[in-house]
Amino acid sequence: MNYSKVFSVLGMMLVALSALLVLPIIVAIIYRESCLWIFASVAGVSLAVGALLATLFRTKNQVIYAKEGFAITALSWLVLSAAGALPFYLSGEIPSYVDALFETVSGFTTTGASVVTEISAMSRACLFWRSFTHWVGGMGVLVFVMAIIPNLSDRSIHLMRAEMPGPIVGKLVPKAKDTAKILYLIYIAMTVVQIILLLLGGMPFFDSVVHTFGTAGTGGFGIKPDSIGGYSPYIQWVITIFMLLFGINFNLYYLLLIRRFKSVIKSGELWCYAGVVLVSIAAITANIYKMCSGFGEALRLSSFQVASIITTTGYATTDFNLWPGISKAILFILMFVGGCAGSTAGGLKVSRIVILGKMISKEVRHMLRPRSVNTVKFEGKQVDDTTLNNVGTYFALYMVCYMVIFLAITAMDSFDFETNFTAVSACFNNVGPGFGAVGPASNFAGYSSASKLILAFAMLLGRLEIFPLIITLSPGTWMKK
Amino acid sequence: MNYSKVFSVLGMMLVALSALLVLPIIVAIIYRESCLWIFASVAGVSLAVGALLATLFRTKNQVIYAKEGFAITALSWLVLSAAGALPFYLSGEIPSYVDALFETVSGFTTTGASVVTEISAMSRACLFWRSFTHWVGGMGVLVFVMAIIPNLSDRSIHLMRAEMPGPIVGKLVPKAKDTAKILYLIYIAMTVVQIILLLLGGMPFFDSVVHTFGTAGTGGFGIKPDSIGGYSPYIQWVITIFMLLFGINFNLYYLLLIRRFKSVIKSGELWCYAGVVLVSIAAITANIYKMCSGFGEALRLSSFQVASIITTTGYATTDFNLWPGISKAILFILMFVGGCAGSTAGGLKVSRIVILGKMISKEVRHMLRPRSVNTVKFEGKQVDDTTLNNVGTYFALYMVCYMVIFLAITAMDSFDFETNFTAVSACFNNVGPGFGAVGPASNFAGYSSASKLILAFAMLLGRLEIFPLIITLSPGTWMKK
Repeated sequence: MNYSKVFSVLGMMLVALSALLVLPIIVAIIYRESCLWIFASVAGVSLAVGALLATLFRTKNQVIYAKEGFAITALSWLVLSAAGALPFYLSGEIPSYVDALFETVSGFTTTGASVVTEISAMSRACLFWRSFTHWVGGMGVLVFVMAIIPNLSDRSIHLMRAEMPGPIVGKLVPKAKDTAKILYLIYIAMTVVQIILLLLGGMPFFDSVVHTFGTAGTGGFGIKPDSIGGYSPYIQWVITIFMLLFGINFNLYYLLLIRRFKSVIKSGELWCYAGVVLVSIAAITANIYKMCSGFGEALRLSSFQVASIITTTGYATTDFNLWPGISKAILFILMFVGGCAGSTAGGLKVSRIVILGKMISKEVRHMLRPRSVNTVKFEGKQVDDTTLNNVGTYFALYMVCYMVIFLAITAMDSFDFETNFTAVSACFNNVGPGFGAVGPASNFAGYSSASKLILAFAMLLGRLEIFPLIITLSPGTWMKK
Repeated sequence: MNYSKVFSVLGMMLVALSALLVLPIIVAIIYRESCLWIFASVAGVSLAVGALLATLFRTKNQVIYAKEGFAITALSWLVLSAAGALPFYLSGEIPSYVDALFETVSGFTTTGASVVTEISAMSRACLFWRSFTHWVGGMGVLVFVMAIIPNLSDRSIHLMRAEMPGPIVGKLVPKAKDTAKILYLIYIAMTVVQIILLLLGGMPFFDSVVHTFGTAGTGGFGIKPDSIGGYSPYIQWVITIFMLLFGINFNLYYLLLIRRFKSVIKSGELWCYAGVVLVSIAAITANIYKMCSGFGEALRLSSFQVASIITTTGYATTDFNLWPGISKAILFILMFVGGCAGSTAGGLKVSRIVILGKMISKEVRHMLRPRSVNTVKFEGKQVDDTTLNNVGTYFALYMVCYMVIFLAITAMDSFDFETNFTAVSACFNNVGPGFGAVGPASNFAGYSSASKLILAFAMLLGRLEIFPLIITLSPGTWMKK
């Protein structure tokens, strides 16, 4: 392990953080809020420390190997969360540092699980920063750094691999840096379109911006106690559609831009995603129909909640914890499915589910005709054994982590089975709300500090897809050879 | 698919069933119970129909291919359960046929989940038959048939593969028939020893026999409302130890008999099983210590419950549904672990968990050093890619089935999340009791008939490890080429 490279990238991350903090500073200036100085100080210190690290540890050897890529990614996220929590803590708006850290990790990982009980008491700048972390974390902090920092070697694709979700991460264009730029440009364009559509629906400018950040990153932090429930049906539909759009693999948008429509239409993951969404909406609409004032309301509520949960955003327009068991069970399963690979959504990712399904079908075919040759195809290409093994192993590792986290928080807090079990699902899959005492109408404030730290770790595990953190924690990574 | 072979084996199964029914007939004679005639009639009809089928469809071609093996196994279990339920139904002791079927499937699959609310009202013959199904189902019905029927071809190993649990099924000796005989002899010997030890503890003869059947098959049907709770600590310890013994791979007992002690000591699965059991007992003992009258009671209660759940037996000496969350969470996870491969226990099997763990470690090593060659070793041998793929795929398929069954019963019955979620776990893993409304102090009588049928299907899926039923249900299996 080359420590210089680690510190140099961490330095760049802190510099990037100070740049990101400029936006909440502007918000504080506009609304004349006293937390302005807190944000300014954190930005200043972050810039100074970051610049110092980046200068001290400047290395000529800019090649980043796979192992280093994983470790750097994991550490970057930890440092960014720890520093990003300071404004909440120092301003006193979240009095406990553990709570502030939970909230910030929840923000960057686009989980959206909150410990803030009185959301209306928060300053505009803090509300903005809270939602902005979603937007930054959605596409990836390192992808962002790669897009803006000059002369980063092309081996930095390993950073992108570690940060981008899904089983197969490819480059759109030969250079990783250009790929990062393209992805961010698409991301920014879609964000702007959503803000405009929300403004057209009569939503105030501040509300439009923060809610778009939460949608784009599939995060879910709101600024009202009832999340999106108080806004007009038009606004709810706009957010529903954009949540679904941000849950699609961004590579497909690039393919649309370069007019390769055929490849988009042939995407197995896209069709599967659309199918799951439509079937879930139909089932829940039928199930909750009697509780609603009519078909229109049932369809709007079910579409919003399905889009919010499958894309792991976590906004709500109703307390779905009060829905009948079957609707809750469908939402519970959607938490695990998650969005498409290469999107800002969490969960297992549709592509992994599709590949697992094809592996099962291959195994059955093999049993029926032991001598036939069977392969697994995905998006028109044959999936090699390494990827298949990786998908199978990831799924097993995912369930092991799930159970360990569940055991750990059950040991700390005596909530009922439903609350603890779905709290893990909500955090690990980066969804936000769960069921029971962590349902959409309540929040995570009731958990002990120990459980909050465990759940924050679960969010990072889910966002970075486990392996980077495991590799960072294994001693073999840190030995010099 | 050769239909003659299917019908001929099904005929043999019915003949075997009539032979098995001789035992409850003897019990009915001893206790002078009126249900004697019911058992006698069912045995008679079963013998007649079975003999007819076996004679009509006698084939010279006795080779059984993999595909046919799976289908025959699945159908045998269905036919045996459907016919075995008749005495309960016709005697009126379980008035609904669906309930009788649920109880019988629960018996043969060694689940032990019951719908009988007044156990003390049942006749001795029915109680005996109920527990005897555990004993027969534990080692396998087809293994039994193979052991007693002359001149069955050696290709019948495919029947055994389909019925024996675990990822790798080998023959102890060159001939499958001899392997089946050896396994049954070990099984009978251990059963006899346990009956004697229970008698020495002052347990009545009838109680000793039925409880031994429930232990040996890791089933769990009791004959008292409080399961084993009313018996002496000595008896509870004997049952604890024998539950654990019946959860070990029977191949190891054979290795002990032929004095290959080294192979036994080197068994990774055995050590892992022992480790999980000891750690779980220690954790739960510490957790429930304050609720008990002393260390001795805490150790006894935790040991019994851990042994009962990990071996998926399902006996109870206390209402563990009232234990603190962390103890319940440990038991919940043990339900999925299950016993060792090649034992009578259910669940995923320790060997699968070990192999999944090694696959994860291999993947991490591969990420740390992409160019190194990594293999997975289990019990001293390298595990080939086909088996690895099979283990990974089985786990994915297992979770998919779990979620589908959970959705299905949630759609039918409006129990709370904990009840429905653990009811699936209790049935699919062949454990018996779950938590909430299906805890050890209550039973499955509250579920609708539809849910009972779904849960009975889940038990068969779990016992036969999914693939045989899927292959039987796929149209490709039944087409003539």
